[in-house]
Amino acid sequence: MKDVTCPLCADPGGALVFQGEKFRVIRADEAGFPAFYRVVWSAHVAEFSDLSVPDRALCMAAVCEVEQALRAHLQPTKINLAALGNVVAHLHWHVVARFDWDTHFPAPVWAERTRPADGVREDAVRARLPVLERAIAARLAHLI
Amino acid sequence: MKDVTCPLCADPGGALVFQGEKFRVIRADEAGFPAFYRVVWSAHVAEFSDLSVPDRALCMAAVCEVEQALRAHLQPTKINLAALGNVVAHLHWHVVARFDWDTHFPAPVWAERTRPADGVREDAVRARLPVLERAIAARLAHLI
Repeated sequence: MKDVTCPLCADPGGALVFQGEKFRVIRADEAGFPAFYRVVWSAHVAEFSDLSVPDRALCMAAVCEVEQALRAHLQPTKINLAALGNVVAHLHWHVVARFDWDTHFPAPVWAERTRPADGVREDAVRARLPVLERAIAARLAHLI
Repeated sequence: MKDVTCPLCADPGGALVFQGEKFRVIRADEAGFPAFYRVVWSAHVAEFSDLSVPDRALCMAAVCEVEQALRAHLQPTKINLAALGNVVAHLHWHVVARFDWDTHFPAPVWAERTRPADGVREDAVRARLPVLERAIAARLAHLI
C-alpha cells in the first residue's frame, strides 16, 4: 500500500489540516493562491478509477466537503478541482479557491500568471484560514 | 436550467461521443493532446458540489467510465482529471489521456509545452479513437 520512492507516502506533503484513515487534507504553499488544499488518498494508487466504488464515493465526498467549506468561508469566484499526478502518481485532488484578483485568474493555476500578487487581498484570505480549517476538519470528522 | 449566455448551454462544445439526459461526452480538439475528452453536465451549474449527492455519483461514474476506457484502449502514462470552469462556469470535467511523449508531459496541459508535437505518435493514438469512442458510448449507455 506504500511506495518507498513516493513523496506522498513518505511525508504529509503540506500543512496537515485533517488526518483520516483513508485520506488526509493538507494546505499547499503555492505562491499566489492563499487557499490551495489537497485531498491525499492514503493508499498508493495512481488513478481515481483504481479505487473501489465505495472509496471513490468517500474520496469525492471529502473533496466536496473541502469545496463547500471553501465556498462558505471565502466566497471564491470559482473552485478548481484536479487530479493530475503526472509528477507524483499518488492519488491527490487539488481543491483550490480561485479569486478574480488572484495571480492567474481566469487561467488555470498551472498556466502563466496574468497579474502580480495582491498581497493585501492574499493576507485577508490567509487571516480566515484558521477558522476555515477547523470547519474542514469538523466536516470530515462527520464523514468518516 | 439553461443560461442563454453560456456556450456549453448553446452548443455541444466539441465532437459528440455520447449524449445522455444528464450529461454528454465530447472530444475536445486541443493541439498536442489526441485523446482529450470532456464530461459536460447538462444543467447549468457552476460547481461540482452544486449537484445533489446522487448526481455527484452519476457524474463521477461517467468520468470513471471515460477514464477506464482511455486506460484500456490507449494505455496512457497517466490520466488527468479536472473541473476548473474559470472561463465557462458550467460544470465540465476534463478527462485527458497523457503520454510521456506528449507536448507537455509531465506538466499540466495548461502549462507551457515541454517539447514539439510527435505527429506520428499522435496519429497512432487518433487511429484508435473510433473504437475507443464506441466503447465509451457503450459503457455510458449501461450507466444511465
